[in-house]
Amino acid sequence: MSLGYDVAALEELINQFERMPGIGKKSAQRMAFYVLDMDKEDAKKFANAISNAHESIHQCQICCNLTEDEVCSICKNEARDKSLVCVVEDPRDVIAIERTHEFSGTYHVLHGAISPMSGVGPDQLTIKQLLARLDGVSEVIMATNPTVEGEATAMYISRLLKPLGIRVTRLAYGVPVGADLEYADEVTLTRAMEGRREI
Amino acid sequence: MSLGYDVAALEELINQFERMPGIGKKSAQRMAFYVLDMDKEDAKKFANAISNAHESIHQCQICCNLTEDEVCSICKNEARDKSLVCVVEDPRDVIAIERTHEFSGTYHVLHGAISPMSGVGPDQLTIKQLLARLDGVSEVIMATNPTVEGEATAMYISRLLKPLGIRVTRLAYGVPVGADLEYADEVTLTRAMEGRREI
Repeated sequence: MSLGYDVAALEELINQFERMPGIGKKSAQRMAFYVLDMDKEDAKKFANAISNAHESIHQCQICCNLTEDEVCSICKNEARDKSLVCVVEDPRDVIAIERTHEFSGTYHVLHGAISPMSGVGPDQLTIKQLLARLDGVSEVIMATNPTVEGEATAMYISRLLKPLGIRVTRLAYGVPVGADLEYADEVTLTRAMEGRREI
Repeated sequence: MSLGYDVAALEELINQFERMPGIGKKSAQRMAFYVLDMDKEDAKKFANAISNAHESIHQCQICCNLTEDEVCSICKNEARDKSLVCVVEDPRDVIAIERTHEFSGTYHVLHGAISPMSGVGPDQLTIKQLLARLDGVSEVIMATNPTVEGEATAMYISRLLKPLGIRVTRLAYGVPVGADLEYADEVTLTRAMEGRREI
């Protein structure tokens, strides 16, 4: 954006913030001015956080989740059940499931989903790495997103795993806890009816 | 925020974004992952934009607006009317007024407004620098915010300038162009009535 006066370093900073997802011109400007108001030490820390994160974070050799080490803290953890692998699309999904504190198995992060529309095929995902770590694995939970792509990916992987004698399961569909039935869409409601349990 | 798994560099980056004004946990997380998805060159540029902006931007020696040089591009511009000075609270106000393309004078940026509540007195603002540049100035437009603090600051400065024989003016109050009268507050409407002009 143009400031109306010439301060290249400030415009560059605003442009950088404006590239972020969900950040418009006004927010970017506010963030840039916030950075200018920081003391020198804090600005240095912020800049370093960006370079550091980018340089030191890579994929875990086992589950392909993000880590600063060769193997991530979850794969390293002796208390985790290595025979149970939860397959997710994205590192953020690991964060979401970990937040439940209910899952004690391990993960496998695909880094995407099969999507012919966006030109993403099985080879762009970490399916090869998943197939290479099946020794001792008894169940794989497909926790890809409840979308067309996530569904297709779950189907594709389950077809590869089932012949190997591994149990493949899928997250349950249903109405979200605390939601209002009135606002649930028909497909979700149908799935919730199909998946009903005795109480 | 805790990620549920241990990637210190990622947590640090999320925390840095979360400190920004108007950015919550979710946005900060999305931005941090966006940075991780950048290629190396782009992340370097982003980090540099932060350090550069912070190191190279300071106040113009004349008007105290932000600049990378000793004197800002507006003060340097020969076409600008140096006898007309528009006093604003913040560099962002300069951007807003420049956007109108209607003002050909120069600015003076106070970097705040007098606010006894927040412990900001006249000495914390750039009033001294304003008084030092009055040679050849015939009019000072007080364009501080239409708030209690902005108003008090405008009054304070006008009392200093008037004895020196300088014309001091204030931005007009009134209803915003394009707004609906129905939603204008009483004070603004009263001011708009008081300031009515013949057509």
